[in-house]
Amino acid sequence: MTLFRYKLTVEYTGTGFVGWQRQKNGFSVQQALEEAAARFCGRPIILYAAGRTDAGVHALGQVAHLELPQDYPAPRVRDALNAQLRPHPISVISAEPVDPHFHARFSAIERRYLYRIVNRRAPLALALDRAWWVPGPLDDVAMAEAATVLLGRHDFSTFRASECQADSPLRTLDELSVRRDGNEILITARARSFLHHQVRNMVGTLRRVGEGKWNAENVALALAARDRRAGGQTAPAHGLYLTGVGY
Amino acid sequence: MTLFRYKLTVEYTGTGFVGWQRQKNGFSVQQALEEAAARFCGRPIILYAAGRTDAGVHALGQVAHLELPQDYPAPRVRDALNAQLRPHPISVISAEPVDPHFHARFSAIERRYLYRIVNRRAPLALALDRAWWVPGPLDDVAMAEAATVLLGRHDFSTFRASECQADSPLRTLDELSVRRDGNEILITARARSFLHHQVRNMVGTLRRVGEGKWNAENVALALAARDRRAGGQTAPAHGLYLTGVGY
Repeated sequence: MTLFRYKLTVEYTGTGFVGWQRQKNGFSVQQALEEAAARFCGRPIILYAAGRTDAGVHALGQVAHLELPQDYPAPRVRDALNAQLRPHPISVISAEPVDPHFHARFSAIERRYLYRIVNRRAPLALALDRAWWVPGPLDDVAMAEAATVLLGRHDFSTFRASECQADSPLRTLDELSVRRDGNEILITARARSFLHHQVRNMVGTLRRVGEGKWNAENVALALAARDRRAGGQTAPAHGLYLTGVGY
Repeated sequence: MTLFRYKLTVEYTGTGFVGWQRQKNGFSVQQALEEAAARFCGRPIILYAAGRTDAGVHALGQVAHLELPQDYPAPRVRDALNAQLRPHPISVISAEPVDPHFHARFSAIERRYLYRIVNRRAPLALALDRAWWVPGPLDDVAMAEAATVLLGRHDFSTFRASECQADSPLRTLDELSVRRDGNEILITARARSFLHHQVRNMVGTLRRVGEGKWNAENVALALAARDRRAGGQTAPAHGLYLTGVGY
Protein backbone atom coordinates (compact mmCIF):
# COMPACT_ATOMS: atom_id res chain seq x y z
CA MET A 1 0.00 0.00 0.00
CA THR A 2 1.29 3.45 -0.87
CA LEU A 3 1.65 5.72 2.14
CA PHE A 4 1.78 9.50 2.09
CA ARG A 5 4.04 11.34 4.49
CA TYR A 6 3.09 14.65 6.12
CA LYS A 7 5.09 17.06 8.22
CA LEU A 8 3.10 18.60 11.09
CA THR A 9 3.94 21.75 13.02
CA VAL A 10 2.35 21.46 16.47
CA GLU A 11 1.65 23.83 19.36
CA TYR A 12 0.79 22.56 22.84
CA THR A 13 0.54 23.47 26.48
CA GLY A 14 2.72 20.90 28.26
CA THR A 15 0.87 21.20 31.58
CA GLY A 16 -0.75 17.92 32.58
CA PHE A 17 0.96 15.79 29.91
CA VAL A 18 3.76 13.34 30.78
CA GLY A 19 5.69 14.98 27.93
CA TRP A 20 5.83 14.36 24.20
CA GLN A 21 6.63 10.66 24.34
CA ARG A 22 4.22 7.83 25.15
CA GLN A 23 4.66 6.62 28.74
CA LYS A 24 3.03 3.90 30.75
CA ASN A 25 2.34 6.30 33.64
CA GLY A 26 0.18 8.92 31.96
CA PHE A 27 -1.12 10.71 28.91
CA SER A 28 1.39 12.10 26.40
CA VAL A 29 1.12 14.60 23.55
CA GLN A 30 2.20 11.81 21.18
CA GLN A 31 -0.66 9.57 22.32
CA ALA A 32 -3.20 12.40 21.91
CA LEU A 33 -2.00 13.06 18.35
CA GLU A 34 -1.73 9.39 17.39
CA GLU A 35 -5.25 8.70 18.64
CA ALA A 36 -6.54 11.73 16.75
CA ALA A 37 -4.83 10.52 13.56
CA ALA A 38 -6.15 6.98 14.03
CA ARG A 39 -9.71 8.25 14.44
CA PHE A 40 -9.28 10.36 11.32
CA CYS A 41 -8.01 7.62 8.99
CA GLY A 42 -9.34 4.47 10.66
CA ARG A 43 -6.06 2.69 11.29
CA PRO A 44 -3.22 2.88 13.87
CA ILE A 45 -0.76 5.70 13.20
CA ILE A 46 2.70 6.35 14.66
CA LEU A 47 4.13 9.85 14.99
CA TYR A 48 7.82 10.78 15.03
CA ALA A 49 8.81 14.11 16.56
CA ALA A 50 11.89 16.33 16.24
CA GLY A 51 12.34 16.49 20.02
CA ARG A 52 10.93 14.62 23.00
CA THR A 53 9.83 17.45 25.27
CA ASP A 54 9.65 16.66 29.01
CA ALA A 55 6.50 16.77 31.13
CA GLY A 56 5.36 20.37 31.51
CA VAL A 57 7.43 21.74 28.60
CA HIS A 58 5.41 23.69 26.03
CA ALA A 59 5.76 23.88 22.27
CA LEU A 60 5.03 26.62 19.79
CA GLY A 61 6.64 24.78 16.88
CA GLN A 62 7.22 21.08 17.59
CA VAL A 63 7.58 19.18 14.31
CA ALA A 64 6.41 15.61 13.77
CA HIS A 65 5.76 13.39 10.78
CA LEU A 66 3.27 10.65 10.10
CA GLU A 67 2.16 8.50 7.17
CA LEU A 68 -1.41 8.34 5.96
CA PRO A 69 -3.00 5.77 3.62
CA GLN A 70 -4.40 8.44 1.31
CA ASP A 71 -3.05 11.66 -0.22
CA TYR A 72 -5.43 14.00 1.56
CA PRO A 73 -5.05 17.72 0.84
CA ALA A 74 -2.74 19.12 3.55
CA PRO A 75 -5.28 21.61 4.98
CA ARG A 76 -7.73 18.72 5.39
CA VAL A 77 -5.13 16.78 7.43
CA ARG A 78 -4.57 19.82 9.67
CA ASP A 79 -8.28 20.50 10.18
CA ALA A 80 -9.24 16.83 10.69
CA LEU A 81 -6.50 16.29 13.28
CA ASN A 82 -7.52 19.48 15.10
CA ALA A 83 -11.17 18.40 15.15
CA GLN A 84 -10.16 15.02 16.63
CA LEU A 85 -7.79 16.61 19.16
CA ARG A 86 -10.48 18.48 21.11
CA PRO A 87 -10.46 19.15 24.04
CA HIS A 88 -6.70 18.72 24.45
CA PRO A 89 -4.61 21.93 24.41
CA ILE A 90 -2.80 20.72 21.29
CA SER A 91 -3.13 22.38 17.91
CA VAL A 92 -1.75 21.40 14.52
CA ILE A 93 -0.62 24.75 13.11
CA SER A 94 0.16 23.35 9.68
CA ALA A 95 0.44 20.10 7.73
CA GLU A 96 2.50 19.74 4.55
CA PRO A 97 3.16 16.80 2.27
CA VAL A 98 6.83 15.74 2.36
CA ASP A 99 8.77 13.11 0.48
CA PRO A 100 9.34 9.72 2.12
CA HIS A 101 12.94 10.61 2.99
CA PHE A 102 11.88 13.41 5.35
CA HIS A 103 12.21 12.41 9.01
CA ALA A 104 11.10 14.87 11.70
CA ARG A 105 13.94 13.80 14.00
CA PHE A 106 16.78 12.73 11.73
CA SER A 107 16.36 15.42 9.05
CA ALA A 108 16.34 18.24 11.62
CA ILE A 109 19.43 20.48 11.56
CA GLU A 110 18.36 22.98 14.24
CA ARG A 111 16.25 23.08 17.40
CA ARG A 112 15.16 26.40 18.92
CA TYR A 113 13.99 26.91 22.47
CA LEU A 114 12.75 29.85 24.52
CA TYR A 115 13.01 29.93 28.29
CA ARG A 116 10.75 32.42 30.04
CA ILE A 117 11.50 33.81 33.52
CA VAL A 118 9.16 36.24 35.28
CA ASN A 119 11.36 38.29 37.58
CA ARG A 120 9.18 40.11 40.10
CA ARG A 121 8.27 39.96 43.73
CA ALA A 122 4.61 39.04 43.14
CA PRO A 123 3.83 35.39 42.31
CA LEU A 124 2.50 34.40 38.90
CA ALA A 125 -1.16 34.51 37.94
CA LEU A 126 -1.57 34.76 34.16
CA ALA A 127 1.84 33.11 33.61
CA LEU A 128 1.23 30.30 36.13
CA ASP A 129 2.71 27.09 34.64
CA ARG A 130 3.93 29.17 31.67
CA ALA A 131 7.11 30.71 33.13
CA TRP A 132 9.61 30.33 35.98
CA TRP A 133 8.94 32.72 38.82
CA VAL A 134 12.17 34.18 40.23
CA PRO A 135 11.24 36.76 42.89
CA GLY A 136 14.71 38.16 43.68
CA PRO A 137 16.31 40.70 41.31
CA LEU A 138 18.25 39.26 38.34
CA ASP A 139 20.97 41.10 36.43
CA ASP A 140 20.08 40.25 32.83
CA VAL A 141 23.18 42.02 31.45
CA ALA A 142 25.50 39.80 33.51
CA MET A 143 23.47 36.76 32.45
CA ALA A 144 23.78 37.71 28.77
CA GLU A 145 27.54 38.13 29.11
CA ALA A 146 28.01 34.82 30.93
CA ALA A 147 25.86 33.03 28.33
CA THR A 148 28.45 33.76 25.62
CA VAL A 149 30.93 31.51 27.46
CA LEU A 150 28.81 28.50 26.48
CA LEU A 151 28.65 29.28 22.75
CA GLY A 152 30.40 26.97 20.30
CA ARG A 153 31.43 23.32 20.41
CA HIS A 154 31.98 21.91 23.89
CA ASP A 155 31.63 18.84 26.06
CA PHE A 156 28.40 19.82 27.85
CA SER A 157 28.53 17.07 30.52
CA THR A 158 28.01 19.74 33.20
CA PHE A 159 24.59 20.50 31.71
CA ARG A 160 23.54 16.93 30.91
CA ALA A 161 20.91 14.97 32.84
CA SER A 162 22.17 11.67 34.27
CA GLU A 163 19.50 9.80 32.30
CA CYS A 164 20.60 11.38 28.97
CA GLN A 165 20.85 8.72 26.26
CA ALA A 166 23.01 10.61 23.75
CA ASP A 167 26.19 8.83 22.57
CA SER A 168 28.34 11.90 23.09
CA PRO A 169 28.27 14.93 25.40
CA LEU A 170 29.70 17.09 22.59
CA ARG A 171 27.30 19.69 21.21
CA THR A 172 27.61 22.94 19.28
CA LEU A 173 25.61 25.77 20.83
CA ASP A 174 24.84 28.35 18.12
CA GLU A 175 22.88 30.83 20.24
CA LEU A 176 22.24 31.49 23.91
CA SER A 177 20.91 35.01 24.23
CA VAL A 178 19.33 36.75 27.19
CA ARG A 179 17.11 39.80 27.01
CA ARG A 180 14.80 41.61 29.38
CA ASP A 181 11.28 42.70 28.43
CA GLY A 182 9.79 44.54 31.41
CA ASN A 183 9.85 42.04 34.26
CA GLU A 184 10.37 39.07 31.96
CA ILE A 185 13.76 37.60 31.12
CA LEU A 186 13.71 35.69 27.83
CA ILE A 187 16.48 33.24 27.03
CA THR A 188 16.79 31.90 23.49
CA ALA A 189 18.83 28.76 22.76
CA ARG A 190 19.61 27.34 19.33
CA ALA A 191 21.67 24.27 18.33
CA ARG A 192 21.62 21.32 15.94
CA SER A 193 20.62 19.24 18.95
CA PHE A 194 20.68 19.44 22.75
CA LEU A 195 21.48 16.98 25.50
CA HIS A 196 18.68 15.96 27.86
CA HIS A 197 17.87 18.92 30.20
CA GLN A 198 20.68 20.96 28.62
CA VAL A 199 18.65 24.15 28.17
CA ARG A 200 17.09 23.92 31.64
CA ASN A 201 20.49 23.25 33.24
CA MET A 202 22.09 26.19 31.41
CA VAL A 203 19.21 28.44 32.54
CA GLY A 204 19.59 27.29 36.16
CA THR A 205 23.29 28.15 35.95
CA LEU A 206 22.56 31.58 34.43
CA ARG A 207 20.21 32.27 37.32
CA ARG A 208 23.20 32.04 39.66
CA VAL A 209 24.90 34.69 37.56
CA GLY A 210 21.78 36.86 37.55
CA GLU A 211 21.69 36.70 41.35
CA GLY A 212 25.31 37.85 41.55
CA LYS A 213 26.52 34.61 43.12
CA TRP A 214 28.50 33.68 40.03
CA ASN A 215 30.17 35.49 37.14
CA ALA A 216 31.14 34.46 33.60
CA GLU A 217 34.37 32.90 34.86
CA ASN A 218 32.48 30.59 37.21
CA VAL A 219 30.38 29.46 34.26
CA ALA A 220 33.55 28.76 32.23
CA LEU A 221 34.96 26.70 35.12
CA ALA A 222 31.69 24.80 35.50
CA LEU A 223 31.72 23.96 31.78
CA ALA A 224 35.36 22.85 31.98
CA ALA A 225 34.57 20.57 34.94
CA ARG A 226 32.44 18.31 32.68
CA ASP A 227 30.52 17.24 35.77
CA ARG A 228 26.81 17.82 36.40
CA ARG A 229 27.56 18.62 40.06
CA ALA A 230 29.56 21.67 38.94
CA GLY A 231 26.53 23.33 37.31
CA GLY A 232 23.51 25.17 38.67
CA GLN A 233 20.05 23.80 39.38
CA THR A 234 17.74 22.46 36.67
CA ALA A 235 15.28 25.23 35.83
CA PRO A 236 11.66 23.99 35.96
CA ALA A 237 10.05 22.49 32.86
CA HIS A 238 7.11 24.92 32.77
CA GLY A 239 9.28 27.88 31.66
CA LEU A 240 10.54 26.07 28.55
CA TYR A 241 9.09 26.34 25.03
CA LEU A 242 10.21 24.43 21.92
CA THR A 243 9.72 27.29 19.47
CA GLY A 244 10.86 25.74 16.21
CA VAL A 245 12.84 23.17 14.28
CA GLY A 246 14.99 23.84 11.22
CA TYR A 247 15.44 21.43 8.27
CA MET B 1 -10.42 52.33 65.71
CA THR B 2 -8.09 53.88 63.15
CA LEU B 3 -8.09 52.09 59.81
CA PHE B 4 -5.37 52.24 57.18
CA ARG B 5 -6.28 52.24 53.52
CA TYR B 6 -4.23 50.46 50.87
CA LYS B 7 -4.47 50.49 47.09
CA LEU B 8 -3.83 47.08 45.52
CA THR B 9 -2.89 46.37 41.90
CA VAL B 10 -4.05 42.87 41.07
CA GLU B 11 -3.42 40.39 38.25
CA TYR B 12 -5.67 37.37 37.71
CA THR B 13 -6.69 34.69 35.27
CA GLY B 14 -10.46 35.03 35.00
CA THR B 15 -11.01 31.41 33.94
CA GLY B 16 -13.13 29.52 36.47
CA PHE B 17 -14.18 32.57 38.50
CA VAL B 18 -17.71 34.00 38.32
CA GLY B 19 -16.03 37.38 37.75
CA TRP B 20 -14.70 40.03 40.10
CA GLN B 21 -17.84 40.49 42.16
CA ARG B 22 -19.15 38.15 44.85
CA GLN B 23 -22.02 36.01 43.56
CA LYS B 24 -24.22 33.41 45.16
CA ASN B 25 -23.57 30.93 42.33
CA GLY B 26 -19.80 30.56 42.48
CA PHE B 27 -16.38 31.71 43.53
CA SER B 28 -15.30 35.26 42.67
CA VAL B 29 -11.96 37.05 42.61
CA GLN B 30 -13.34 39.44 45.25
CA GLN B 31 -14.16 36.56 47.60
CA ALA B 32 -10.70 35.03 47.16
CA LEU B 33 -9.02 38.35 47.98
CA GLU B 34 -11.35 39.18 50.88
CA GLU B 35 -10.79 35.76 52.44
CA ALA B 36 -7.03 36.14 52.01
CA ALA B 37 -7.15 39.58 53.68
CA ALA B 38 -9.33 38.26 56.52
CA ARG B 39 -6.92 35.40 57.19
CA PHE B 40 -4.04 37.88 57.21
CA CYS B 41 -5.49 40.36 59.67
CA GLY B 42 -7.98 38.25 61.63
CA ARG B 43 -11.14 40.19 60.83
CA PRO B 44 -13.63 40.46 57.96
CA ILE B 45 -12.42 42.74 55.16
CA ILE B 46 -14.32 44.24 52.22
CA LEU B 47 -12.60 45.10 48.93
CA TYR B 48 -13.70 47.75 46.44
CA ALA B 49 -12.50 47.44 42.82
CA ALA B 50 -12.21 49.90 39.96
CA GLY B 51 -14.16 47.66 37.63
CA ARG B 52 -16.34 44.58 38.02
CA THR B 53 -14.89 42.23 35.42
CA ASP B 54 -17.23 39.53 34.07
CA ALA B 55 -16.71 35.77 34.42
CA GLY B 56 -13.71 34.71 32.33
CA VAL B 57 -12.28 38.24 31.90
CA HIS B 58 -8.62 38.54 32.93
CA ALA B 59 -6.79 41.39 34.63
CA LEU B 60 -3.21 42.57 34.43
CA GLY B 61 -3.87 45.72 36.44
CA GLN B 62 -7.17 45.61 38.29
CA VAL B 63 -7.13 48.13 41.17
CA ALA B 64 -8.90 47.64 44.48
CA HIS B 65 -8.72 49.19 47.93
CA LEU B 66 -9.20 47.82 51.41
CA GLU B 67 -8.78 49.03 54.99
CA LEU B 68 -6.61 47.26 57.51
CA PRO B 69 -6.57 47.71 61.31
CA GLN B 70 -2.80 48.30 61.41
CA ASP B 71 -0.35 50.36 59.33
CA TYR B 72 1.60 47.42 57.95
CA PRO B 73 4.49 48.21 55.60
CA ALA B 74 3.06 48.01 52.06
CA PRO B 75 5.37 45.20 50.83
CA ARG B 76 4.23 43.14 53.82
CA VAL B 77 0.58 43.60 52.78
CA ARG B 78 1.43 42.51 49.23
CA ASP B 79 3.41 39.44 50.34
CA ALA B 80 0.95 38.37 53.05
CA LEU B 81 -2.03 38.58 50.69
CA ASN B 82 -0.13 36.62 48.04
CA ALA B 83 0.79 33.93 50.56
CA GLN B 84 -2.88 33.62 51.59
CA LEU B 85 -4.10 33.62 47.98
CA ARG B 86 -2.42 30.34 47.02
CA PRO B 87 -3.39 28.34 45.00
CA HIS B 88 -5.71 30.78 43.20
CA PRO B 89 -4.36 32.33 39.98
CA ILE B 90 -4.54 35.79 41.56
CA SER B 91 -1.49 37.88 42.39
CA VAL B 92 -1.19 41.22 44.19
CA ILE B 93 1.42 43.02 42.06
CA SER B 94 1.72 45.95 44.47
CA ALA B 95 0.20 47.46 47.59
CA GLU B 96 0.53 51.14 48.50
CA PRO B 97 -0.80 53.17 51.40
CA VAL B 98 -3.35 55.76 50.27
CA ASP B 99 -5.25 58.46 52.09
CA PRO B 100 -8.81 57.70 53.26
CA HIS B 101 -10.31 59.74 50.40
CA PHE B 102 -8.92 57.37 47.76
CA HIS B 103 -11.60 55.08 46.33
CA ALA B 104 -10.64 52.45 43.76
CA ARG B 105 -13.92 52.93 41.87
CA PHE B 106 -14.91 56.55 42.41
CA SER B 107 -11.43 58.10 42.18
CA ALA B 108 -10.64 56.35 38.88
CA ILE B 109 -10.46 58.66 35.85
CA GLU B 110 -9.47 56.06 33.26
CA ARG B 111 -9.94 52.34 32.55
CA ARG B 112 -7.75 50.55 30.01
CA TYR B 113 -8.60 47.25 28.35
CA LEU B 114 -6.88 44.96 25.87
CA TYR B 115 -8.81 42.56 23.67
CA ARG B 116 -6.80 39.74 22.15
CA ILE B 117 -7.86 37.90 18.98
CA VAL B 118 -5.85 35.02 17.54
CA ASN B 119 -6.54 35.05 13.82
CA ARG B 120 -5.44 31.74 12.32
CA ARG B 121 -6.92 28.58 10.93
CA ALA B 122 -5.55 26.31 13.70
CA PRO B 123 -7.42 26.30 17.02
CA LEU B 124 -5.84 27.66 20.19
CA ALA B 125 -3.53 25.66 22.43
CA LEU B 126 -1.27 27.96 24.48
CA ALA B 127 -3.82 30.80 24.21
CA LEU B 128 -6.83 28.62 25.09
CA ASP B 129 -9.13 30.69 27.36
CA ARG B 130 -6.73 33.63 26.91
CA ALA B 131 -7.83 34.94 23.50
CA TRP B 132 -10.71 34.82 21.00
CA TRP B 133 -10.07 32.39 18.18
CA VAL B 134 -11.23 33.79 14.83
CA PRO B 135 -10.24 31.30 12.09
CA GLY B 136 -11.24 33.28 8.99
CA PRO B 137 -8.98 36.09 7.73
CA LEU B 138 -9.47 39.53 9.32
CA ASP B 139 -8.49 42.84 7.74
CA ASP B 140 -6.90 44.66 10.67
CA VAL B 141 -6.40 47.88 8.67
CA ALA B 142 -10.14 48.12 7.92
CA MET B 143 -10.87 47.36 11.60
CA ALA B 144 -8.49 50.12 12.74
CA GLU B 145 -10.15 52.62 10.40
CA ALA B 146 -13.68 51.68 11.47
CA ALA B 147 -12.69 51.89 15.15
CA THR B 148 -12.05 55.63 14.80
CA VAL B 149 -15.77 56.15 14.13
CA LEU B 150 -16.47 55.27 17.75
CA LEU B 151 -13.97 57.71 19.29
CA GLY B 152 -15.26 60.65 21.32
CA ARG B 153 -18.47 61.30 23.25
CA HIS B 154 -21.48 59.29 22.08
CA ASP B 155 -24.62 57.53 23.20
CA PHE B 156 -23.25 53.96 23.19
CA SER B 157 -26.65 52.21 23.59
CA THR B 158 -25.79 50.00 20.58
CA PHE B 159 -22.87 48.55 22.55
CA ARG B 160 -24.58 48.32 25.94
CA ALA B 161 -25.71 45.07 27.58
CA SER B 162 -29.42 44.99 28.43
CA GLU B 163 -28.53 44.37 32.10
CA CYS B 164 -26.28 47.47 32.25
CA GLN B 165 -26.99 49.50 35.40
CA ALA B 166 -25.39 52.81 34.35
CA ASP B 167 -27.62 55.89 34.61
CA SER B 168 -26.66 57.14 31.17
CA PRO B 169 -25.54 55.52 27.91
CA LEU B 170 -23.26 58.51 27.21
CA ARG B 171 -19.56 57.73 27.36
CA THR B 172 -16.38 59.30 26.00
CA LEU B 173 -14.14 56.81 24.23
CA ASP B 174 -10.55 58.12 24.30
CA GLU B 175 -8.87 55.27 22.44
CA LEU B 176 -9.90 52.29 20.34
CA SER B 177 -6.86 51.12 18.42
CA VAL B 178 -6.31 47.95 16.43
CA ARG B 179 -2.93 46.48 15.56
CA ARG B 180 -1.70 43.19 14.19
CA ASP B 181 1.23 41.31 15.71
CA GLY B 182 1.80 38.18 13.61
CA ASN B 183 -1.46 36.24 13.76
CA GLU B 184 -2.73 38.19 16.77
CA ILE B 185 -4.99 41.22 16.54
CA LEU B 186 -4.72 43.42 19.62
CA ILE B 187 -7.43 45.97 20.36
CA THR B 188 -6.79 48.61 23.01
CA ALA B 189 -9.68 50.58 24.53
CA ARG B 190 -9.41 53.49 26.92
CA ALA B 191 -12.12 55.64 28.56
CA ARG B 192 -13.05 57.22 31.86
CA SER B 193 -15.58 54.42 32.20
CA PHE B 194 -17.34 51.87 30.01
CA LEU B 195 -20.88 50.54 29.83
CA HIS B 196 -21.47 46.86 30.65
CA HIS B 197 -20.08 44.71 27.80
CA GLN B 198 -19.15 47.85 25.83
CA VAL B 199 -15.65 46.70 24.90
CA ARG B 200 -16.77 43.18 23.98
CA ASN B 201 -19.68 44.55 21.91
CA MET B 202 -17.39 46.98 20.07
CA VAL B 203 -14.94 44.14 19.35
CA GLY B 204 -17.74 41.92 18.02
CA THR B 205 -18.77 44.74 15.71
CA LEU B 206 -15.20 45.30 14.52
CA ARG B 207 -14.99 41.61 13.68
CA ARG B 208 -17.74 42.15 11.11
CA VAL B 209 -15.59 44.87 9.57
CA GLY B 210 -12.51 42.62 9.63
CA GLU B 211 -14.47 39.94 7.77
CA GLY B 212 -15.44 42.44 5.09
CA LYS B 213 -19.17 42.22 5.86
CA TRP B 214 -19.24 45.78 7.16
CA ASN B 215 -17.29 48.99 6.63
CA ALA B 216 -16.74 52.11 8.73
CA GLU B 217 -20.03 53.60 7.52
CA ASN B 218 -21.98 50.59 8.79
CA VAL B 219 -20.35 51.08 12.19
CA ALA B 220 -21.35 54.76 12.16
CA LEU B 221 -24.95 53.79 11.33
CA ALA B 222 -24.98 51.13 14.06
CA LEU B 223 -23.76 53.71 16.60
CA ALA B 224 -26.39 56.20 15.46
CA ALA B 225 -29.16 53.57 15.83
CA ARG B 226 -28.66 53.57 19.63
CA ASP B 227 -30.08 50.05 19.67
CA ARG B 228 -28.21 46.93 20.80
CA ARG B 229 -29.78 44.95 17.93
CA ALA B 230 -27.95 47.20 15.43
CA GLY B 231 -24.49 46.13 16.69
CA GLY B 232 -22.37 43.03 16.21
CA GLN B 233 -22.09 40.01 18.48
CA THR B 234 -20.65 40.18 21.99
CA ALA B 235 -17.04 38.99 21.77
CA PRO B 236 -16.29 36.27 24.34
CA ALA B 237 -15.07 37.21 27.82
CA HIS B 238 -11.87 35.16 27.67
CA GLY B 239 -10.20 37.52 25.14
CA LEU B 240 -10.57 40.56 27.41
CA TYR B 241 -7.95 41.93 29.82
CA LEU B 242 -8.32 44.85 32.23
CA THR B 243 -4.80 46.21 31.81
CA GLY B 244 -4.84 49.26 34.05
CA VAL B 245 -6.72 52.01 35.85
CA GLY B 246 -5.74 55.69 35.97
CA TYR B 247 -6.21 58.02 38.95
